[in-house]
This record gives sequence, C-alpha cells and structure tokens, in this order.
Amino acid sequence: MNENPKSLSKKAGLSPGALVHIGTRKTNKIKVTVIDYNEAKFSEVNCKTIEECFPYKDSSSVSWINIDGLHDTEAIGKIGQHYGLHPLLLEDVLNTSHRPKVEEFDDYLFLALQMFGLSKDGKYVVSEQISLVLGKNWVISFQEQEGDIFDIIRQRIKEKKGNIRHKGTDYLLYRLIDTVVDNYFFVTEHLTDVIEKLEEKVMNNQDKETLQEIQHLKKQLVNLRKSVMPLREAVSSLQKDVHEFIKPDTIRYLRDVYEHLIQVNETIDSERDTLASIMELYLSGVSNKMNQIMKILTIIATIFIPLTFIAGVYGMNFDNMPELHWKYGYFAVWGVMFAVIFIMIMFFKRKRWL
Amino acid sequence: MNENPKSLSKKAGLSPGALVHIGTRKTNKIKVTVIDYNEAKFSEVNCKTIEECFPYKDSSSVSWINIDGLHDTEAIGKIGQHYGLHPLLLEDVLNTSHRPKVEEFDDYLFLALQMFGLSKDGKYVVSEQISLVLGKNWVISFQEQEGDIFDIIRQRIKEKKGNIRHKGTDYLLYRLIDTVVDNYFFVTEHLTDVIEKLEEKVMNNQDKETLQEIQHLKKQLVNLRKSVMPLREAVSSLQKDVHEFIKPDTIRYLRDVYEHLIQVNETIDSERDTLASIMELYLSGVSNKMNQIMKILTIIATIFIPLTFIAGVYGMNFDNMPELHWKYGYFAVWGVMFAVIFIMIMFFKRKRWL
Amino acid sequence: MNENPKSLSKKAGLSPGALVHIGTRKTNKIKVTVIDYNEAKFSEVNCKTIEECFPYKDSSSVSWINIDGLHDTEAIGKIGQHYGLHPLLLEDVLNTSHRPKVEEFDDYLFLALQMFGLSKDGKYVVSEQISLVLGKNWVISFQEQEGDIFDIIRQRIKEKKGNIRHKGTDYLLYRLIDTVVDNYFFVTEHLTDVIEKLEEKVMNNQDKETLQEIQHLKKQLVNLRKSVMPLREAVSSLQKDVHEFIKPDTIRYLRDVYEHLIQVNETIDSERDTLASIMELYLSGVSNKMNQIMKILTIIATIFIPLTFIAGVYGMNFDNMPELHWKYGYFAVWGVMFAVIFIMIMFFKRKRWL
Amino acid sequence: MNENPKSLSKKAGLSPGALVHIGTRKTNKIKVTVIDYNEAKFSEVNCKTIEECFPYKDSSSVSWINIDGLHDTEAIGKIGQHYGLHPLLLEDVLNTSHRPKVEEFDDYLFLALQMFGLSKDGKYVVSEQISLVLGKNWVISFQEQEGDIFDIIRQRIKEKKGNIRHKGTDYLLYRLIDTVVDNYFFVTEHLTDVIEKLEEKVMNNQDKETLQEIQHLKKQLVNLRKSVMPLREAVSSLQKDVHEFIKPDTIRYLRDVYEHLIQVNETIDSERDTLASIMELYLSGVSNKMNQIMKILTIIATIFIPLTFIAGVYGMNFDNMPELHWKYGYFAVWGVMFAVIFIMIMFFKRKRWL
Amino acid sequence: MNENPKSLSKKAGLSPGALVHIGTRKTNKIKVTVIDYNEAKFSEVNCKTIEECFPYKDSSSVSWINIDGLHDTEAIGKIGQHYGLHPLLLEDVLNTSHRPKVEEFDDYLFLALQMFGLSKDGKYVVSEQISLVLGKNWVISFQEQEGDIFDIIRQRIKEKKGNIRHKGTDYLLYRLIDTVVDNYFFVTEHLTDVIEKLEEKVMNNQDKETLQEIQHLKKQLVNLRKSVMPLREAVSSLQKDVHEFIKPDTIRYLRDVYEHLIQVNETIDSERDTLASIMELYLSGVSNKMNQIMKILTIIATIFIPLTFIAGVYGMNFDNMPELHWKYGYFAVWGVMFAVIFIMIMFFKRKRWL
Repeated sequence: MNENPKSLSKKAGLSPGALVHIGTRKTNKIKVTVIDYNEAKFSEVNCKTIEECFPYKDSSSVSWINIDGLHDTEAIGKIGQHYGLHPLLLEDVLNTSHRPKVEEFDDYLFLALQMFGLSKDGKYVVSEQISLVLGKNWVISFQEQEGDIFDIIRQRIKEKKGNIRHKGTDYLLYRLIDTVVDNYFFVTEHLTDVIEKLEEKVMNNQDKETLQEIQHLKKQLVNLRKSVMPLREAVSSLQKDVHEFIKPDTIRYLRDVYEHLIQVNETIDSERDTLASIMELYLSGVSNKMNQIMKILTIIATIFIPLTFIAGVYGMNFDNMPELHWKYGYFAVWGVMFAVIFIMIMFFKRKRWL
Repeated sequence: MNENPKSLSKKAGLSPGALVHIGTRKTNKIKVTVIDYNEAKFSEVNCKTIEECFPYKDSSSVSWINIDGLHDTEAIGKIGQHYGLHPLLLEDVLNTSHRPKVEEFDDYLFLALQMFGLSKDGKYVVSEQISLVLGKNWVISFQEQEGDIFDIIRQRIKEKKGNIRHKGTDYLLYRLIDTVVDNYFFVTEHLTDVIEKLEEKVMNNQDKETLQEIQHLKKQLVNLRKSVMPLREAVSSLQKDVHEFIKPDTIRYLRDVYEHLIQVNETIDSERDTLASIMELYLSGVSNKMNQIMKILTIIATIFIPLTFIAGVYGMNFDNMPELHWKYGYFAVWGVMFAVIFIMIMFFKRKRWL
Repeated sequence: MNENPKSLSKKAGLSPGALVHIGTRKTNKIKVTVIDYNEAKFSEVNCKTIEECFPYKDSSSVSWINIDGLHDTEAIGKIGQHYGLHPLLLEDVLNTSHRPKVEEFDDYLFLALQMFGLSKDGKYVVSEQISLVLGKNWVISFQEQEGDIFDIIRQRIKEKKGNIRHKGTDYLLYRLIDTVVDNYFFVTEHLTDVIEKLEEKVMNNQDKETLQEIQHLKKQLVNLRKSVMPLREAVSSLQKDVHEFIKPDTIRYLRDVYEHLIQVNETIDSERDTLASIMELYLSGVSNKMNQIMKILTIIATIFIPLTFIAGVYGMNFDNMPELHWKYGYFAVWGVMFAVIFIMIMFFKRKRWL
Repeated sequence: MNENPKSLSKKAGLSPGALVHIGTRKTNKIKVTVIDYNEAKFSEVNCKTIEECFPYKDSSSVSWINIDGLHDTEAIGKIGQHYGLHPLLLEDVLNTSHRPKVEEFDDYLFLALQMFGLSKDGKYVVSEQISLVLGKNWVISFQEQEGDIFDIIRQRIKEKKGNIRHKGTDYLLYRLIDTVVDNYFFVTEHLTDVIEKLEEKVMNNQDKETLQEIQHLKKQLVNLRKSVMPLREAVSSLQKDVHEFIKPDTIRYLRDVYEHLIQVNETIDSERDTLASIMELYLSGVSNKMNQIMKILTIIATIFIPLTFIAGVYGMNFDNMPELHWKYGYFAVWGVMFAVIFIMIMFFKRKRWL
Repeated sequence: MNENPKSLSKKAGLSPGALVHIGTRKTNKIKVTVIDYNEAKFSEVNCKTIEECFPYKDSSSVSWINIDGLHDTEAIGKIGQHYGLHPLLLEDVLNTSHRPKVEEFDDYLFLALQMFGLSKDGKYVVSEQISLVLGKNWVISFQEQEGDIFDIIRQRIKEKKGNIRHKGTDYLLYRLIDTVVDNYFFVTEHLTDVIEKLEEKVMNNQDKETLQEIQHLKKQLVNLRKSVMPLREAVSSLQKDVHEFIKPDTIRYLRDVYEHLIQVNETIDSERDTLASIMELYLSGVSNKMNQIMKILTIIATIFIPLTFIAGVYGMNFDNMPELHWKYGYFAVWGVMFAVIFIMIMFFKRKRWL
C-alpha cells in the first residue's frame, strides 16, 4: 500500500491544478515510449525528450504514449499542455493516492486505477496508480514506476496476435484496463493461499503473532476493496454512458471487465468472511486453552487437597488418637487415600474431563 | 464447491475470448446429444462428431443440443463458430467458476447458472456450471459432467407429458432453469437437516470439531448464496426485459422460478441465522463448562482448605497446647470439622451450586 | 410454524402447475361455503358438492366462496377450471409454505397471506396459509383448516352491521385481509408478554433453559417477520398499482392495513431488540456468577493459605525452635492468625468484595 | 412511553373507523377551546358544549380549535361529522399509539405526531399523541391531556408578537409542529445528561443496576427514534408534495422543522453510540475486576504454597533428617522462606502485577 | 467539538428566525473585512462600522465580505437586512451547531460548513462553523472566531497568483470551500498518527486509560463524520443542480472538492475500522493476560500441591510407619519429590506453557 497519503495536507491552500507529485519522489529520469500502429504499420519509439511524443496527437493511426515515472512534473505539465489536458486531470495523475475514477472531458476520457502487486517478501500488497487518457487517436498511460505489466500487450501488438491491430484506441484502453484487472486475481489468489494457511495455523496455535497477522490481512483486504469498489463503478459507468470514443463493439468487452471486477470483489468479501471466521476460531481457541488450564488445575487441586487434609489429620499431636496406635492404621490411611483418588478419577471420567 | 477458481489468474494478459477451460480437466470425450421435437415429431440423436449437430441450427422444430464435458475446447469452439456465439460467451462457458448471469446478444440469449449437489459422503456441497444458450429454434446446454438431472425433462418430452411438446424453445429454457432451481431445494433441505442435528449436538457437547463444523457449514451457505443471489437477479431481468425469443406466456413461469429463488434465498438466510444461534449456544456452552469447572474447584477448595488449616494447627509442636491433652480433644476437632463441612454445604445450597 | 417446507423438493422435475398439496394431509372432506349478498339480499349455502358453487361465478351480487381444507386437490382443480384460475395460482394455493404475495391476472387478483395463531400450549406460533382470489363479482378464500377467524365478518354481513353490505367485492377482500392483520397484533402482544416475563426471569436466573427459550423466541420472531415483510410489500403494491376491481374508495382502507402492517413490523423489530438486550443480560449474568464464584474462592484461599502456612511452620520438627518452648507461644500464634484474618477482611472490605 | 399499545388487538374484527379510544381512559370532561383571529381581530372561547365550535368551520378568519382529552368519543365523533373528517382519521386520532404520519384528504390535511416529555421523577420519557387537522380556514388540534405546551403560541397570537397574526392556517400548523419538535431537544438534552453521568459512573462501578440502567436508556432511545423517524418522513413529504392549503412561503419554514428533526435524529443516534460505548466499558470493567481477583488469588497462592511445602518437609517424622539437628536449621529455613518471598515479589513486579 | 448544542432547547417557542447566537458568547467586537477585486483592481478595507460594507452590494467587481465573530446579533441582523438575507438563513448562521447544508434562495445561495482544527493540547478536535452566502457580485463569509485559515486566499488575490483574479464569485466560493476541506486532511492525518501510536501501545499494555482513549477517539471520528457526510451531500447537490451563479466551468472544480470529501470520508471509515481492530487487540490482550495469570497459578499449584501432600504423609504420627525408620527414607522422599517436579515440568513443556 502506498504509505504516504498524508502528504495530501501539504497541498492545503495551493491553487487547484498545482502540479505537486504526491508519492515517493524518485530521481531517475521519466521514460516515455510511443507505440504507433494500425492494421498495416507498427512503430515503437523511446522518446529522449518529452517533445518527441507531441506529433502523435494528430496521427490517424493508434498512438499509445506510455510514461513511466511521475516525479518530473515539468515534463508532465508539457504533455498536458500539448494534449490539452485539464489541470485537475494532471493533478489527479500526480496524486497517486487517488481513488479510482473515470471522468469525461470534451476531447478525451480520463481513467485512474490502482494496480496491485506483492512486495518482495510477499507480505504486503503494494499498489501503484495507473492513469489512462483516451483521446481520439491516442491513449496516454501514466505509471508511477517502470513496470513490465503492459509488456504482454506490447508484444501482441507487435506480433499482430489477436485482433488488437484491427481495432481502435478504445480497444487498446480496454486491453490496458483488462490487464490491470487480471492482475487483481493474482493478488486475491495469493491472499486466499495466505489465509488458508493461517486458518490451519490458528487451529493449533493462538499467540499474539497470529492475532497481528489476522489484523494485518484484514487491513490489506480493506485497502484492496477500497480500490476495487470505485473502479467497478467507474467501469460500470464507462460501459453504460455512451462516449463517442468508445465503440458499441467494445462495450461488451468492458462489461466483461466489469464482471471480473464483481468477481474480484466477491472474492475479497469471502476472504473477509473467512478472516472473521478465523478470528472466531482464534478467540474460541484462546478460551479453550483457558478451559484446559482450569481443568488441569481443578483436577490436581481436587485430588490432592482432600488427601493433604487426611495426612494433616494424622499429623495432629493429640494425646488420645486411637487410630495412630492401630497396627495397620498407616496402611489403612493409604487405602482411604487411594479410594479418594479412585472416586475422583471416576467423577472426572463421567464429566469427560479425562 | 469448485475448488480451483484460482486458475483464473493464468489467463492474465491473454486475448479476451481465448478458449481456456478453467476447471478440472477430464480426459473422456465430450458427449453431444440432440433432441429435436415439435408437437408432432420427436427424435433423439447421440452425435459421434461435433459436426452432426450443426444442421439443427435452421430446423424449424425445437432442437435441444446438450453438451456434457467442457475439456474439448476445440469442439466447443467449432459449435460456437457454427452457431455464431460470441468469443466472450464461450469464455464464460468454459470458465466454470463464473457467477450466474444472463446476457443478451443479437441472435441469442446466454444464461450461466450453477447447479448444486452433494458430494458422495454428503459432507460437501458441490457445484457444476450449466450454461444455456437460447436461439430462435434451438437451445444449447453445456454441462461440466455427464449428469442425469435433465433426464426427467427428456422423458417428459419423449412421452408427451405435460405441455412441453406444445411450447417453444423459451418454455424448454424455463424447464431447464426450473429443474436446476428445484434441485436447490434438495440441497437447502439437506443442509437444514444437518444444521438441526448440529443444534442438538451443540447443546451437550462443545468441542473443537463442533466449531469446525459450524464454520464449514457457514462456508457452504456463503457459497450457495453467492450463486443464488446473482441467479435471482438474472431471472428477474429475464422476466422484466422483454426479449423477442421469450413469449409473454412464459414470463409468468419465469416469475414462478424467480419466487422459488427468493424462497431458496430466504431459507439460506434463516439457516445462516440458525448457525449464528448455534454459535451463540456453542460459546455459551463453553462458558457454562468453565463455570462448572470453577464451581467444583471452589467447592472442594472452600471445604478442605479450612479443614486442612485446623489439622495444621493441632500438628504444631508447642510445648504448651492444652487442647492436645484433653481426653476428647481429637474427637472435638472432628466435630468442629464436620460443622465446617455442614456450614459450607448449606452455603453452597443457598447459592444453588449444589 | 409450518414444520415441513421440505417437501418442496419432492416437486423437482414435475410439470409446473402440477397440483400437489404441500403441507400436512388431512383426511376430512373439504368444506365449501358460499355467502351471496348485496344491499338487499343475503344467502348462506353449505355446498355438498364442489359443483354447487359454480353458478355464483356470474351472479351480479357479491359472492364469497370459502374453502376450508386443501387436501382434496381434485375438487380444487375443478374450481380452478371453472373460475378460470391459472395453474400456477392453484399451485401457490396448495403450497402452504409460500411467502405472501399479490399477483395480478387478467380477470382476477391473487393474494396469498399467512395467518398466525398460537399452538394450544401457547408456546409456538403456528401459521396457516390463506389464499384470496378477487374476481369481478366473487371472492374465493382458501384456508388450510376450518377456522372461525372469518366468523365475525360473516356475522356482520348477515346482520347488516357497518357498511359491508353497501360495498363490493374489493371491500370484502379488504375486510378479509384486515381481519388477518388484526390477528397479528394478538400474536405480537402475546410474544411481548412472554418476552417481558423472560426479561425478569433472566435477571435472577441464567440456566441453559433460559438460553434455549431466548433462541426459540428469536426463531418465532424471524418466522413472523418473514411473513409480515412480503405481505407489507404486497399490500403496498395493491394500494399503489390501480387495479380495475379495486375502487378508489377502498384504497384508503388498504393504506390503513398497510400502516397496521408497518406497526406490526415495528413491534417485531423492537421485540428482537429486546431479545438482544435479554441475551446481553443473560451473558452478563453468567459472567457475574463466574465473578462471584471466583470471589468466594479467592476470599477463602487468601485467608486460609497464609494461616495454614503459619501452622505448618510450627509443625516443623527442628531441635532448636525457641518459640515452641515459650509459655504462651501457642496463644501468640493464634493472635497472629487472628490479625491476619482481620487484615484480610479489611482488605476485602476496601475492595468492596464483602 | 404509552404503556398499552396492546389494546390494539381488542379492535380485531370491528368495522374500520369504529371509534374506540386506545389509551388510558380518563373521567374528566374533554375541554374545547377556540381561538379565532386575523390581523385585525382576536377572540378566545372556552366552549361549554361541543356544538359551540361548529360555526367556526366557515369563518373567514383563522380558527384554531384545540381539544384536550380523547375519552369522550361521542363528542369527537360529532366534531368529525360536522367538519367532514374521514372515519379512519378519527380512528387514528383516538388510537394514541399510532406512529406519526401525514395524510392528505380532499378538504383537509391530517398530521399525527408524538410529543415527548419526562415523567415526574425524570426517569421515563413519556409521550402524548397530538393530532392536527388543517382545513381551509381552521386548524383542529387533539391532545390526550390538558397541557401547556401550546400556551406560548396562544400568548404570541394574543399579543400580536412575531408575524403569526399576519399569516394563515398553514403558518399556525407549522408553529404547532415546530413547538412540538423544539420540545424534542429538551428531552434529548436531558438524556444526554443522564448518559454522561452514567458514563462516569460505569468507570468505577459495574453492578447489575448499571446494566439495567443502560438497557433502560436504550429502550427509551429506541422509542424516541420510532417516533422521530416517521415524523421526519411526514414533514419531508409535507414540504415536498405541494398541497393547496400550504403556501409556498411556509414551505421553507417546514424545511427548517425538517432539519431540526434530522438533528434530533442524529443526537439520538450518537446517544445510542455512546450507550454502546458505555456497554463496552461496562463489560471491560467486569472483566478487569475478574482479572484483579485472579491476580490477588495468584499472588497469595504462588507465594504461600511453596512456603507451606517447605514447612511440610520439615514437619516430616523421619528418623534420619540431618537438617533438623543443625543448630540454626530452623533459622536457615526462615531465610530460605524469605528468599522465596523476595523472588516471588520480584517476579510479580517484573510482570507489573504489583 | 462544540460543547453546547444543548442551548438549542432554549429557543423552544420563540419565533422562527429570532436571532439568538447559539454558541459561546464572546465580548470582543465583531470584525468586518471587505476585499473588492477584479482582474484590474484590488482593495482591502477593515470596516469600522457594519454600514461600511453596504455599498459593495451593487459593485460590479467581486466583493468578499468576511465577518469574524457572531455575538453581535444586531450587526448581523443589519447586514442580513441590507443584503436581503432570509431570517431563517441568519438563524442558521448564528446556530453554530448546525449540520452542514446548502440552501438555494432566489437571489443567493447559502452554504453552512464546519471547519475542524485541533485544540491546543492536540487532544481534541475542535470545530467552528463557517457560513458562506454567494450573491451575484458578492460573497459573505461568517466565521465564529477570527482565524487565519483564509489568509492564504487573501494573499493569492492580492498577489494575483493563480487565476482567482480572472474568475468570479463562484470561483471564490469554491476556493473558500476547498480551503476548509483541505484542512480536513490535516485533522484526519493527525488522527491517523494518534491511532497508529495507540495501536502500538495497545500491543503491550491494556489498562483503563487505553480503553478510554479508544472510546475518546471513536467519539472524535463520529463527530467528524457527522460533519463530513452532509457536507459531501451538499457539495454534490451544488455540483449537480445548476444554479445561475455557478458557472459550468466551476462545476468541475466543485467535483474535485466532492472527490476530496469522499476521500476524507473513506479515511475516517478506515480509521474507524482500525479503532475496531485496536479494540479487538485490547480485549484479546486482556484475555491473554488472564490466561497467563491462570497459567502461573496452575503451574505453581500443580507442582507444589502434590509435594505438600507427600510431605504431609510423612508428617503423620502413626506408630507403625516403616518408611520413617529407613536410613535413607528422608532422601528417598526428596528423590520422589524431584521426580514429581521433573514430570510436571515435562508435562508443561509438552503443553507449551513453559
């Protein structure tokens, strides 16, 4: 999870649309790649300067401008200006803790979504904001970090696999969203595994760490859900509100994405249910342990306290205690004691404590 | 329950509509049966090759093509192509962990639903996806496994029972859905039985296994509900949104199915309520047990600790302890001890512990 | 409560509208009574054969055909045929575990509702399905058992009390519904009494039986609610969707019934709240008991364990123990012991345990 | 709270609109007062017979007829007849446990609401139903008991304070509602005080009485809420659905009342939240007490049980026990014992139990 | 939080629109500042008398009249009269415990919102009501106290930063709302910090103070939420319902504010979730402590009670006890005792208690 949504308050009082990158700043240069294709042609360009991607605005073929890194606010400002992007849109691109949303502008459509992955130790779910702008003949995608998630799409465009080369920018947009959403399954399946292991562990062991792990997983799920829910709404509105750049043909594909998001959401919900069950198992395990501790204490005390009393009686120093002088008094007392033990054990057996 | 919805992430990045069977692969050949009937004629054909079922596309009588087994994606692809089914539809047919849904296409209507049954040991609720496609003069049904659930319908068509032979494809579709939904009652009634037995068991016995059984049943119910809820919505939309292939006459029958689904859903909800009550009984039983353990400990300790003290006093070795030399001192001490026991027992009686 | 909603699964696979009586079969003959009236005339007929009630279909006066008993499915089928009732409607009449609903047909209006009463021992809430069909000049009411709930209406019609004789079939329908709903107050008031008594009992006594009673009442309320909620919706739709057979004048009366149902529902809700509070009282009572048990144990143990230790010390057999030879050593020890007791009691007083 | 909503079931089977007073019957005569005013004139009349208030029906000035007491159903029936009130309306006036509602009739508007006050000992919230009927030139208000809540309005009309004399019946209606709603603040503020005191009390003391007080307050709040919620809806519909008798100018005032009701409702909600927190404090206080009891028991037992064991060892009567004959054996044992005590105390200090 | 919403009941019975300041009265004079600007000109005036701000009503440039302090109801009444503000609006301005809302009037738009800050010790969230009135060419803002929150806007207007000087009153209104909302982030981030610290603290320490802190924070969040939720609705309606004074261009900015409010709300929700988790940790910590106390008691008692019994046996005074006369009897007993200790420790090790 993005750990610093806090810095949002730093913006208080600034002009709206002021370009401040909210996130961890990185020092590398941002990387701009343009893929320009239609059914016939294909070209891939790594732009050295931001200006290199400007000409594609009016090319009639599909141009996909991908920008990795958001720290160079100046360059992003330039792209924004050239492509006529609204200052508030750029603000949303840079504010990487933004909740997913779709927003329609006159000349383009803006979509912000969160991609999820696992931290290197596999313990944390980490997120990265991906912003997509769909223009007439171009798609601009902004990523926080250089990543390889979209490589598979690049590959397919290059190799003319599937029908992506026959379709327009709206289909490209769909493919980008779809790739991100498919990745959600990966994360939720990982969490399902973790939760299943936790469930088994909790059966036998209820320590503080288990409790913390339950709480930790709960937080991860809450965070995931916070991104999936608004994205679902956004994709739903994309699919319902007809926008000129989205062809009727693509709508059905978007509905497919929408259904995937519902499924992701249901998985998250049932994982939350499972966690709640695990919490119940935990609490019940703790109280079972307590019961067992008490049982052992009670068994020991209930057996030995009466015995100790008997021993105490014959440890008294009265002058006149006839039993003490019986020949087999001592052994009789042992007999009585064993009888007490036997009765007690029978009693516990009947109570099913032993 | 389908145990592997995980494999979904394997699809990440693939083209939409790529035919990948998500489920347990089986090696048997898939089995294709065609029943072709109208008021006058009836024929039943076991197709040897997939192509045998192609001619029925344009027959004017009602053709019901039933396909058992989904592992032969090639054959399914062929049917899809012949009948003009959308790639995303075929994807949904093969992805057997799909949530129930209805989707309208230009030339046909697609319905995915989950059938439920019990595993052989009666402990698990297992599900199988059934996909139905309603065309103008044909219905295609896809089943994961060869099953006999639709045999009763086949029988009735053959023997001209009821009015199924007088009605069209929409009525056949209704009958197929209805048969699946009627089966839900069987599963929920089985669960009601299991839950009732569990309730009685919990009254007398609160062990770890009971808790696990409660959790297990809760999961089964959650899974059932996850299939029933969207199916209810799907049937509701079928009945409300007029589709050219569904005759007004059949709408009322679909409403009947809709009401059955509401009833199934209410049964599931009250079963969940009952499970919650059982959980309360369990927890309260555990704490009652604890109370009883503590009571026994307290009774034993409260009676014997004072007695042991008295015995201890007369075990002291002071030179000058007059009581030790009384003739009946020893017996007097016994008297005191019995008095203490008597008082204690009275006290516990008043507290209603005995 | 109807104990056998299970038998529903027996219907799986049968033709829709197949007349199967779902409920406890009874062997008595069904009883058909017809009341035919208008402002001027009044007649009451006990039909010997089912056919006797057929002529009333076209009589211009108001005809109320009441049928007690549902086991003779053949007779009911005949009525259905004569009055043109849809097979699915008859199915709903016979399936007595149906949830309340209203359904419009072309020539009549169907309403299913549940009547509630108390079992003879007053411990169970029992329900009976009442089905009402409103035609142009007739009302048919189906009851599971012969009952006297509608006698008061019969009386009023006969004796020309109120304005029922001046009004049409829609007003009769309203009066039938109203009578059933008024009966709900009786049941909820009874439950309120039972719950109030339970609340007082729980204050002093927390045993297993109390817990079972709480759970039992909770179930009764859930079942009641399950019938009241859909009936409320049904009456609401009756009152909103104008139907040709219901005159504008009667709408206001239906709204009155609707408000009564809201009130019944609110009563049920507050009874559920009260039960939840009682559960809290129960649990808190159990834990208070535990606290008290622990307190007693702690008081006894804390006082006597140190005393026993002191006694133990002077029971040691060391050669050189000067205290043993003091003249008043023994009595001094007693003094010390009483001091310990006194200090302990002071301590418990300060802790408010005594 | 009205303690007898039970009597509702007494009405079962009676004709709708049968005038039965549901509430505690009182023997005093009902009191009818008429205030007739416009900008110019003002008159106040205490009617001796109910007929005296009949002429005001057609007076062109604003007539406010206030009726205290509902037990004389005959008189109320007469007013109803004269002013053309619907029988169901009169039924609602007399049924004082009715939930607040607004209902439009052709010639008038009916509003039922609950007024709240405190019982004399300040422990109970008591309610009284107030029914208001707004006609063209008259307002009739029905109160269960003679009260002084509306005196302030009477005063203001008499003394020409504010603009009430310049406005019509709709403004008078608004003022009556507003006065009742303002009174709600008084009750909720009282409850807030009581709850705050309870919160402090619960910090130090968790006995049965506290628990009962929490439950009692919870019930009071539930009852309040049950009246405020429907009133809010009623006022909302008054303000939205334009009615000929309510001038556009008054709508804004009604919106103000509506907002007050939202505020009352929010206060009730946060009081419920606070009560839930107090319940948590209570439960946690109980378990803290338990913890402390156990701690004391454990400290005493853990210190003295080992010491008693040591004393027991040297109380054994073996012939050959060298320590017994050491000169300072006895004192050495005391040393060991003090060491044990010291170690134990250190241990408890480290555990922060002391 | 405003501590005295109670005084609301003091208003009961008064005329609506009676100007009573509900809040803590202050004795300082109220302070009126006017900023009048357009693209070309800028002037800032500190009005000595309230009348000085009257001429700006009809100035064609943008006039922002800021009023600090609400205790001088007379002055506020004068402004209201001059600017034609509705009495109910002024009542809302003065009633500082009002819930946020937007209300449209013919000639202006009224917006009430709550600003949040921290009390000096950082423990309490304090609120101040800000009321904004948007007229054609003027904006009036009412603040309870003199504050510097809007200084940054004043600065930007003065220094022509951003585009505020090019835009109209609606943009100024947006900037004022935005500034208040940006401040919410500050408060929620502070609370996030406090909650994180609390979470760590609860891990190691579960005392009464922690519990009180949890409850305190919960209250703060509830109060925050109570202000944010209606403000969200208010801003949503501002943005949806087109009002003549709000230009289409500004709508998008208001949507941005709306999204910020959603984000604030989500933060509050996840903080509440975290608090619920902390509560779980707290309770589980308490019960863990209990477990540990019991464990120690059980270990000590289980080891020493049998040993004491053994010692007791050989403290008996029977004449015939052969073991007593064995040469190494005493040492053998010690051996037995060590064996018991060893077995017990093994047992506890296996139970993982040690």
